[in-house]
Amino acid sequence: MPLLLTQDDLRPLVEGSQFFDDLFHVIRDALLQRHGSELGHLSWLAFPLGQEGRRFNINALATPTDGTSIRVFPVSGGDIHPASDGYFAILIDNKDGRLQALMSTDDLSPLRTSAPVGLACAYLARPDATTLALLGSGVQARYHLRAIARAIPTLEVVHVFSPTVEHRQQYASEMSKETGLRVVPMASVQDAIENADIVSITTTGRAPIKDAAWIRSGTLIVSITGQGIPNDLPTRLVVPALEGPAVRASGWDPRPVMATTGGRDRSTIAATLQDIILGTAQARLHSDDIVVYEQRGSYAWDALLLRWVYDWACEHGAGTPFHLTANDAYGKESQ
Amino acid sequence: MPLLLTQDDLRPLVEGSQFFDDLFHVIRDALLQRHGSELGHLSWLAFPLGQEGRRFNINALATPTDGTSIRVFPVSGGDIHPASDGYFAILIDNKDGRLQALMSTDDLSPLRTSAPVGLACAYLARPDATTLALLGSGVQARYHLRAIARAIPTLEVVHVFSPTVEHRQQYASEMSKETGLRVVPMASVQDAIENADIVSITTTGRAPIKDAAWIRSGTLIVSITGQGIPNDLPTRLVVPALEGPAVRASGWDPRPVMATTGGRDRSTIAATLQDIILGTAQARLHSDDIVVYEQRGSYAWDALLLRWVYDWACEHGAGTPFHLTANDAYGKESQ
Repeated sequence: MPLLLTQDDLRPLVEGSQFFDDLFHVIRDALLQRHGSELGHLSWLAFPLGQEGRRFNINALATPTDGTSIRVFPVSGGDIHPASDGYFAILIDNKDGRLQALMSTDDLSPLRTSAPVGLACAYLARPDATTLALLGSGVQARYHLRAIARAIPTLEVVHVFSPTVEHRQQYASEMSKETGLRVVPMASVQDAIENADIVSITTTGRAPIKDAAWIRSGTLIVSITGQGIPNDLPTRLVVPALEGPAVRASGWDPRPVMATTGGRDRSTIAATLQDIILGTAQARLHSDDIVVYEQRGSYAWDALLLRWVYDWACEHGAGTPFHLTANDAYGKESQ
Repeated sequence: MPLLLTQDDLRPLVEGSQFFDDLFHVIRDALLQRHGSELGHLSWLAFPLGQEGRRFNINALATPTDGTSIRVFPVSGGDIHPASDGYFAILIDNKDGRLQALMSTDDLSPLRTSAPVGLACAYLARPDATTLALLGSGVQARYHLRAIARAIPTLEVVHVFSPTVEHRQQYASEMSKETGLRVVPMASVQDAIENADIVSITTTGRAPIKDAAWIRSGTLIVSITGQGIPNDLPTRLVVPALEGPAVRASGWDPRPVMATTGGRDRSTIAATLQDIILGTAQARLHSDDIVVYEQRGSYAWDALLLRWVYDWACEHGAGTPFHLTANDAYGKESQ
């Protein structure tokens, strides 16, 4: 029976003490899952919304084992403006195409980006990393911190920079309360990243690292935008995997549906997170190597994540079961 | 607030005495609606399902005035096998991308095909038509009869042919009870269409009209498949409109997502239903002209139909309101 899963319904999962550990396992499983060439098929649609400059996206992903998901999320001019009931996903059974769930992705949508980042930090940061620099103070910066704090138990200090003073101050005040870490607003990018073991970039170009010398050796730089890293910085580039689901874009919005500019030259990829997890590749050849983990594009973890949430809900009786189709035969003649 | 609209919730609408009259108005309005080139954007996706030979379709249609709909419907090898909770649509607000409804399309899905057919019959059949021949006895044949019976009040007799004896007998028995018309199972295509004023073809090639001479003058032939009409039959071809929404297919299924074979040569279109409704074209130049109304491809009435259903539900307090996003600020920080 289909399940209606609201943000409230999913809170016991999202706020549970085991949540991030379990989620890291799900992402790791998704990364290691192999089906030959059958990683699934993703269609990415972008439609313009009525309001000038706004659009929304539909990601329809069909996978061989985890069913099909349709994920809807509005995007406005590169910045995400969360709208009530604007982020949601549909889960569809693979066998007969039945609806299995309509679920809120208010929390899951940013987590599908930040949780893999957290997992990557666990594998790519130098041991005993204590200091995280965050460039950006928006939704993703919050979810990044939640994930990285769980992935790096040695973390003590967080330096946050945003060009807007109020934003970095508010972020520091709220997130130090939430995480119990020392979250400090910094006056410049350079101040923020100085002495950082991990640098996380969640902004698009508004807080660039202007000088390669600001990055100390051995640092892990995590980027979901591909922007703001000096071109002359010698780094080892790590990406989640070389192959994701096959993607076809059907964008009706004039802007590209997937960022194809920015980011490091993919021919310089040193290793994949997949191989590093498997132990067949190393993050660093020397302990002072600077690693850039770039997480852009489409990977196969969406379906497994939504399937995991759905399985959790079934097991714990969460959500509201419903039927769309009436129980009697009305309108259901088969011939 | 989003609405959950089940098949049961929509029954007062679908079974109401005004339903078809109102629906014909909606389809007519949709046909006449003009937005310059902005008829909307449709992305048609087809994904293979796990089970051999099965697939399902996603139609995402964005329109300038009626919002965006995502319609999901499974298709299996050309025949439709209705699955519980397998036909549904999502309605999304155009302004900010919020979810407005998750609704059953168990009944609406076949109606979006059959209601325009009914409307077309009202404009294209000769006055005082009394006899309808149905080639096919499946779901569409049932919904066609429901729509045509409402559109043609002079209808008295229905001749139904299906190659399978039990199917045509069961159809005749059930549909004569439901409609109060004399529905008679016929032993051959020729028997069925002899003396028919309207011939409706809802099968794909299994009940072809083998001889042009079987069709009497002045007949209206209605086809949603484009198949089974003799090539040497001189007819006037009518289609709903020359322009529908811009369509991009992103099919992952090896079969074509839209039938591009079969059907009449579109360069021979004599008139559009649009123009005939407006009075700027005529169905027949002579009363014995045979008219073929071919309704294939994508038209803009989907969004208006779903919007109309949603507006009805809001007005009548139908369905179950829900929120996906929690009311408090959790996970909704904007910067």
